[in-house]
Amino acid sequence: MEVFGDNSCPPSCNTLGFLQKNNSLDEKGRLAGQKNLLSCDNSDRDARFRLTETDFSNLFARDLLPAKNGEEPTIQFLRLSTAPLRCWTSTTPTSSWRAWRASTWSCPTSPNPWSRSWWTAGTRSNMASGQVTHDSSTSCPLVWTSSVWPESGSPPLPTPTCKFTYEIAPVFVLMEQLTLKKMREMIGWAGGEGDGLFSPGGAISNMYSVMMARYKYFPEVKTKGMSAAPRLVLFTSEHSHYSIKKAGAALGFGTDNVILLSTDERGRVIPADLEAKIIDAKQKGYVPLFVNATAGSTVYGAFDPINEIADICEKYNLWLHVDGAWGGGLLMSRKHRHKLAGVERANSVTWNPHKMMGVPLQCSAILVREKGILAGCNSMCAGYLFQPDKQYDVNYDTGDKAIQCGRHVDIFKFWLMWKAKGTIGFEQHIDKCLDLSQYLYNKIKNREGYQMVFDGVPQHTNVCFWYIPPSLRSMPDSEERREKLHRVAPKIKAMMMESGTTMVGYQPQGKNVNFFRMVVSNLAVTQSDIDFLIDEIERLGQDL
Amino acid sequence: MEVFGDNSCPPSCNTLGFLQKNNSLDEKGRLAGQKNLLSCDNSDRDARFRLTETDFSNLFARDLLPAKNGEEPTIQFLRLSTAPLRCWTSTTPTSSWRAWRASTWSCPTSPNPWSRSWWTAGTRSNMASGQVTHDSSTSCPLVWTSSVWPESGSPPLPTPTCKFTYEIAPVFVLMEQLTLKKMREMIGWAGGEGDGLFSPGGAISNMYSVMMARYKYFPEVKTKGMSAAPRLVLFTSEHSHYSIKKAGAALGFGTDNVILLSTDERGRVIPADLEAKIIDAKQKGYVPLFVNATAGSTVYGAFDPINEIADICEKYNLWLHVDGAWGGGLLMSRKHRHKLAGVERANSVTWNPHKMMGVPLQCSAILVREKGILAGCNSMCAGYLFQPDKQYDVNYDTGDKAIQCGRHVDIFKFWLMWKAKGTIGFEQHIDKCLDLSQYLYNKIKNREGYQMVFDGVPQHTNVCFWYIPPSLRSMPDSEERREKLHRVAPKIKAMMMESGTTMVGYQPQGKNVNFFRMVVSNLAVTQSDIDFLIDEIERLGQDL
Repeated sequence: MEVFGDNSCPPSCNTLGFLQKNNSLDEKGRLAGQKNLLSCDNSDRDARFRLTETDFSNLFARDLLPAKNGEEPTIQFLRLSTAPLRCWTSTTPTSSWRAWRASTWSCPTSPNPWSRSWWTAGTRSNMASGQVTHDSSTSCPLVWTSSVWPESGSPPLPTPTCKFTYEIAPVFVLMEQLTLKKMREMIGWAGGEGDGLFSPGGAISNMYSVMMARYKYFPEVKTKGMSAAPRLVLFTSEHSHYSIKKAGAALGFGTDNVILLSTDERGRVIPADLEAKIIDAKQKGYVPLFVNATAGSTVYGAFDPINEIADICEKYNLWLHVDGAWGGGLLMSRKHRHKLAGVERANSVTWNPHKMMGVPLQCSAILVREKGILAGCNSMCAGYLFQPDKQYDVNYDTGDKAIQCGRHVDIFKFWLMWKAKGTIGFEQHIDKCLDLSQYLYNKIKNREGYQMVFDGVPQHTNVCFWYIPPSLRSMPDSEERREKLHRVAPKIKAMMMESGTTMVGYQPQGKNVNFFRMVVSNLAVTQSDIDFLIDEIERLGQDL
Repeated sequence: MEVFGDNSCPPSCNTLGFLQKNNSLDEKGRLAGQKNLLSCDNSDRDARFRLTETDFSNLFARDLLPAKNGEEPTIQFLRLSTAPLRCWTSTTPTSSWRAWRASTWSCPTSPNPWSRSWWTAGTRSNMASGQVTHDSSTSCPLVWTSSVWPESGSPPLPTPTCKFTYEIAPVFVLMEQLTLKKMREMIGWAGGEGDGLFSPGGAISNMYSVMMARYKYFPEVKTKGMSAAPRLVLFTSEHSHYSIKKAGAALGFGTDNVILLSTDERGRVIPADLEAKIIDAKQKGYVPLFVNATAGSTVYGAFDPINEIADICEKYNLWLHVDGAWGGGLLMSRKHRHKLAGVERANSVTWNPHKMMGVPLQCSAILVREKGILAGCNSMCAGYLFQPDKQYDVNYDTGDKAIQCGRHVDIFKFWLMWKAKGTIGFEQHIDKCLDLSQYLYNKIKNREGYQMVFDGVPQHTNVCFWYIPPSLRSMPDSEERREKLHRVAPKIKAMMMESGTTMVGYQPQGKNVNFFRMVVSNLAVTQSDIDFLIDEIERLGQDL
């Protein structure tokens, strides 16, 4: 089977000189229309490098081998996805790798053919070397601090790069800024204004939100420590992710000062409870600082009522954070984004494309409405990285906003997916996953042997249920029955893992004994998979 | 050019049932000797899947294209490194992918042929799916929470996975534990005992160290916040990485309570200054908590005298952290590890394999001597992840020790490199880079137009120097000359970037105006590259 015989390579392309100081992002975009900036001159393209464009926007994992008739699409897909590597094996001069089209920088509504995105994105190697702004093909800082890679050296291999200064990762820095702006537009902040960062996961993103709230109201804590502030309290749902409590512990608030809010039967914060607890805290002399509203709770998939919570935050002048790590993806869906109504009133938002949107881990964004607060909170102005006398606009040196130094390049995969799928592609992904969860819910809600943990269609893809083995079905509710039921899900899960057919998580929650929580976020799941899951639970659980 | 015609695939392999509860790591290792656990039965290997082993341990980037005669090694290298992908395109049943040999788990002193490591490691896909412990080839939790991937579905594509519970990433969890143990052995902790985690970078690792110190002495801060503790102070060198200050700000100590220690002319902490400042802080009623000793400072590459600092920490009962983010790699070198003498006396150590050891970013470890403190400090026992009633030893659920939830799999690349290069390979890498830095130092220390920032052979690969353009050479020292010299390095760097030939960082430090800091961490750099750098600086700087 000759899979890799194609020698297609990216087109040769002109590049330009170094970006001049004080070029704003908009100016860069405008300049980008000029042929000598980020644009491709294809007229002299070597026929050897011509790429036959193939539209993979409708290709799914299930279409590939070992699916029936999967050989052809698999070969095509692999030819394209490994082409940069193959290309590199040829003696193509590296100057031919600078294939960038400014028009493709933005995150589109509709999908682009995968191939075009790939070519215009170039390779990691290409971007790591910053060739968009450099004139030489061999300038490749392989070391995060400084290094030498002269003309006489080897070509730039795919290398690690990281984002703290523009000069080290110019393309990724710009990609990050453009993508964060697009995300802020999706949130509903006017003009996509604000700030943000990609961080190593939702827990860290949530930690940023607490740090920013503290800096906003008590900036002196940065220099003087928590002793400079009164006793500050944070509010979050009893169903919220544990990272809020972890942030409270780590940042010096203490977990006792993370006040848990009661929820309704669906796991949504009760706004009146929030207000009562704010009043109570104030009466005790504490200072309410921060409220976390969860958009898509971990276990129930619940969406807290953001607008009602925002009203209370405005009334008491509190920072409102929306933890949309799990549910933020629903902003991409016209059908489901209403569940986050009011998110534009938040001061900060966590949104993990690596969860609901299928971006490989890690890819989490912390977004903030107010400009300057992220830098104010975290910057230390390290002289060895952030020199003010650089020959470009140092506003692009975003690294000092982070609590990290070098950061893994998480943006590229997300940007590339957005290019390839378009907003519409993410919307289809999300709508399909939610449809499948509803399919599961509809199948089991009245089925013998199942009991839903809460009534009604789940807000997210989380379907929470007990499987009741035949031996327990006629047993009246009692402590004994609850104890037995508590052991059912762990047993079934262990059998699933031993037989290797599937794996579904379980957990207790509050007074509820262990129940299954089925979550769908994978676009490749089908109704037959859901049917299989139900069959499997019944097969494994029938004799318990 | 037929690069990818080889259809070699990993061998078919038996697997075993699910690991039983209470199997210790040692027991797993012992069990691993049995043919039915992690071992390969090659006797029935399909000839089609036979791999011709090629030893790439002496292959360097410079041997590959476009190097002269580079075609053959490049083709061989690519054949092997893309083999799993090619293999996947065949109709090989996925059960053939379980290629694991327990004997290759450990991190060896000598290199293994790259190929063998690769096969025994399997693929990301293989490990993400946890097939080592599951009996089915199609059990693939694609979602970090729970998901379904039944027999009827598609095969496991390479997928993101993350480390917080053993069941989600069994192989990576074990890899992490084994590799951290090996690193602790290199530090010198008896039997490799202790604990640790891979974190998203040295700044976060350093933050962990401060959190652990606080938890060790004031565990009540976790619940009650910083107000439960007296005014705590941290000590670190004025040359240390800014992440210690960032941690001080973030964790609620305040940067005013991060006390900077004076250094000698080489940038090393003066122990007497530490003791004087501890005494001064105590006299003011503050409580000294934590000392950071830097092993390889960012700018000068200085190694603080750990033993002398450890004496003082013992005397005053302070937590000693060694920030070896940059210099920790020298522990792999018999020639250079003496620079970290005393590191075994530290309570915690940061060590970034993604810096001096060439592992792609991100790969940073925080290591701690005392068991239990990392978990005590950070655990929140989230019910949805860390159920005590799982059917395996939940000590392998390491995620609750982290301030993150899901973590990117940073261990695999490091483990694989260690397998392939061996400790000896890392040692050669490090010794060569240090030799090259000394070559640069020797070339410029007495050369006209150069002035060293400090005297003597650099301790690490950091070579810090001024280039003095001819116009300044005869000018006596004055404010005017210093101002002019301050502008030289930025100008030369900008010209380097415009001409695209190389890039070297600069910064001021204390009273020293901007100087170049040349760092070598890339094994592919040669003496001719260093020669080129000097020529280039002189070419660009001669008319300034």
